Amino acid sequence: MLDLTVQSQEAADRLGDGILELAKYRETARPGWTREVFSEAYRESRQWVSGRMAAAGLEVQVDSAGNIVGRLAGTDPKAPALVTGSHTDTVDGGGRFDGVVGVLGALEAVQLLRESGQRLSRDLLVVDFLGEESNAFGLSCLGSRAIAGELTPADFDRQDYRGASLGQAYRDFGLDPAAVLQTRWARTAPLHAFIELHIEQGPTLEQRQLPLGIVTAITGIERLVATFTGSPDHAGTRPMNDRKDAMVAAAEAVLSVRREGCGAPNHGVATTTRIESESRSPNVVPSLVRMTSEVRSVDTAWLSGVRGRLAEEILANARNLGVDVEFDWTTDNTVVHAHPRIHDVAAAAADAIGIPWMPIPSGATHDAVHMAALAPMGMIFVPSRAGKSHCPEEWTDFADIATGVGALAQTLTLLDRTEPSPADLT
Amino acid sequence: MLDLTVQSQEAADRLGDGILELAKYRETARPGWTREVFSEAYRESRQWVSGRMAAAGLEVQVDSAGNIVGRLAGTDPKAPALVTGSHTDTVDGGGRFDGVVGVLGALEAVQLLRESGQRLSRDLLVVDFLGEESNAFGLSCLGSRAIAGELTPADFDRQDYRGASLGQAYRDFGLDPAAVLQTRWARTAPLHAFIELHIEQGPTLEQRQLPLGIVTAITGIERLVATFTGSPDHAGTRPMNDRKDAMVAAAEAVLSVRREGCGAPNHGVATTTRIESESRSPNVVPSLVRMTSEVRSVDTAWLSGVRGRLAEEILANARNLGVDVEFDWTTDNTVVHAHPRIHDVAAAAADAIGIPWMPIPSGATHDAVHMAALAPMGMIFVPSRAGKSHCPEEWTDFADIATGVGALAQTLTLLDRTEPSPADLT
Repeated sequence: MLDLTVQSQEAADRLGDGILELAKYRETARPGWTREVFSEAYRESRQWVSGRMAAAGLEVQVDSAGNIVGRLAGTDPKAPALVTGSHTDTVDGGGRFDGVVGVLGALEAVQLLRESGQRLSRDLLVVDFLGEESNAFGLSCLGSRAIAGELTPADFDRQDYRGASLGQAYRDFGLDPAAVLQTRWARTAPLHAFIELHIEQGPTLEQRQLPLGIVTAITGIERLVATFTGSPDHAGTRPMNDRKDAMVAAAEAVLSVRREGCGAPNHGVATTTRIESESRSPNVVPSLVRMTSEVRSVDTAWLSGVRGRLAEEILANARNLGVDVEFDWTTDNTVVHAHPRIHDVAAAAADAIGIPWMPIPSGATHDAVHMAALAPMGMIFVPSRAGKSHCPEEWTDFADIATGVGALAQTLTLLDRTEPSPADLT
Repeated sequence: MLDLTVQSQEAADRLGDGILELAKYRETARPGWTREVFSEAYRESRQWVSGRMAAAGLEVQVDSAGNIVGRLAGTDPKAPALVTGSHTDTVDGGGRFDGVVGVLGALEAVQLLRESGQRLSRDLLVVDFLGEESNAFGLSCLGSRAIAGELTPADFDRQDYRGASLGQAYRDFGLDPAAVLQTRWARTAPLHAFIELHIEQGPTLEQRQLPLGIVTAITGIERLVATFTGSPDHAGTRPMNDRKDAMVAAAEAVLSVRREGCGAPNHGVATTTRIESESRSPNVVPSLVRMTSEVRSVDTAWLSGVRGRLAEEILANARNLGVDVEFDWTTDNTVVHAHPRIHDVAAAAADAIGIPWMPIPSGATHDAVHMAALAPMGMIFVPSRAGKSHCPEEWTDFADIATGVGALAQTLTLLDRTEPSPADLT
């Protein structure tokens, strides 16, 4: 077992220094700690990450999908490798911890293993996945999707709001889309397990005063773009009872979306993130309004009914207003459960080193969703102050991260010794 | 009395030809029949309007505020002049009748007077007012405001969304802002009356199957920009009961605005024309949302209470959601009543030539609002098909316009003979 008491303050200090140092690579024209995928700040920061990996004693490579991979050789080169890691890009206006904790924390776990004299039998791969966050092309988890074989040629035709393609963004970043499509990590060299350390990004651990969450499942996401079409009448002369006001219909739909989230029996959230109106004039009843919403849950049964329930309510309310609605639904992710064995090993690891924990759903999506296609997957959460994330105030105490790193290191130690069950390799 | 029966078909044909001809001057890159103030299409169309005025036998000048003024000399050069007219600019995506009917209809009234052998004792001024519609600078009724002395130097500093100033737009259009500010039509040459022919832009006349409305009052307009500030939490991880969602607060406010309009006891409309969110990310609970709304009524008592009522309801709902609100109210227009004498003369004119009419409030604002500062004011409405206006489908049958022209000509004839009462000149 690892002895964490000696190293924890030192680990926390090193982690804190690294996090604050990496945060200096940011897009200064954007709010917060922005370091979006393909930005110049991101490009420069990846040199820093590679150097940090090398300094931790890892053999560093960038794969053809742009993932930075640091390898700690195990004693048995033939054993399927352990994989851990996360990402270092941010959302626009984001913070310093989301993703970063899983990359720098993995390096600290390597340090912890070394200092405690542990040598893993399996290779350990620490990955900084390319572009995990939502981006202007509308495709998240670029690096983990690539190695899971989930990117298609059509994905590279996606355009940002200026009409630039994702493929061009890859090329400008020095990556060849054709090569990206070939990156899929081979099934012939199976992976033993994937475990990702991450901040919770929600308030639950803090509210329960628990230092650790062990993830049960990663949320499914249903995205809706609803387009409301009414009648562009004069806002001054059209009586209230004779209008077809697309904005009012959209406002009612915003409240329907919220009610749907509030009514989830188990776990669920529903958010309208955007309302856009076509009209430039302040004197016209809005006739074309677009609403962008999303619903998330780890409760597959509830989530599977959300399209029907929301469409029915929104349509009925809009029809009462004489407004037409078109629904464009996309499933961004289906619910992905953590592998029970990984969950149980992580729980055993936490228990072994005396860290209290709770099982927790992940309302955010992660690279782990795509890694689950390549290996049995699990995740470990550390608390987020006030539950804040994707904002400049995002914070996790360095001591809390060090606690998570201890759990990660112990989990890797235990996973190193477990044998895969036949069911893992389906 | 005018005999309208002979000329009406011919008048309708001429009016229709003129309206369709003027509509050819449009911004082809914009939807509908767009001819916004300061556009190239507008500049070219004004040559056509000037030519049409000259062909109608008027002496044409463009005043230093950019208004095109056609003068039909009366027999008594010392008598205060009659003024009629409207505008020929459109909103973005607008139609072919709003404003145009009042300019081309006035020329047709001149024709009608001539054909019936009538000669007015007073000068008649037919005005095509510069830029009546809302524009990118947020200031409507440019020409009529100028001659009423209601423009200020600060108005020329207003900027459009590209940062160009209104003053520069005037200069690019060949008009000198300093001269515009000096244009105020002199009180030393008082005007006898202003009467504007216009489409209703609403459905009331059509629904009541009446060919004519005589305006009682022009709506007051209160404009609201409400800014909702919540908390930019992660849309996947922040539980529903722990959010400060500015979009939900704005959606509730949209419904409050609508309820306020629906609850007007006499006459009132309330519209939210725009919702804007600061966030670029689809994964963040909206934390900064701006709502643009307006409330209109000719009921001064009700309208004066709208700020208090709406602020109270919107604030209470937002506070329940943990969202802050800032209110920025502006009074765009106070209620302007038609002058009772002008209303009564127009009514007598309609009765005299056998045109059924109803008193009607104007929910749209007009150049007449500002002309009311210079002369006793009245307006005559003709029906709008399906009440549609500010949209490409805007339509009034040419025969209906000819009926309105008859009423206008008869009103001018009667006004020509009336003496101003002392109360008119306060």
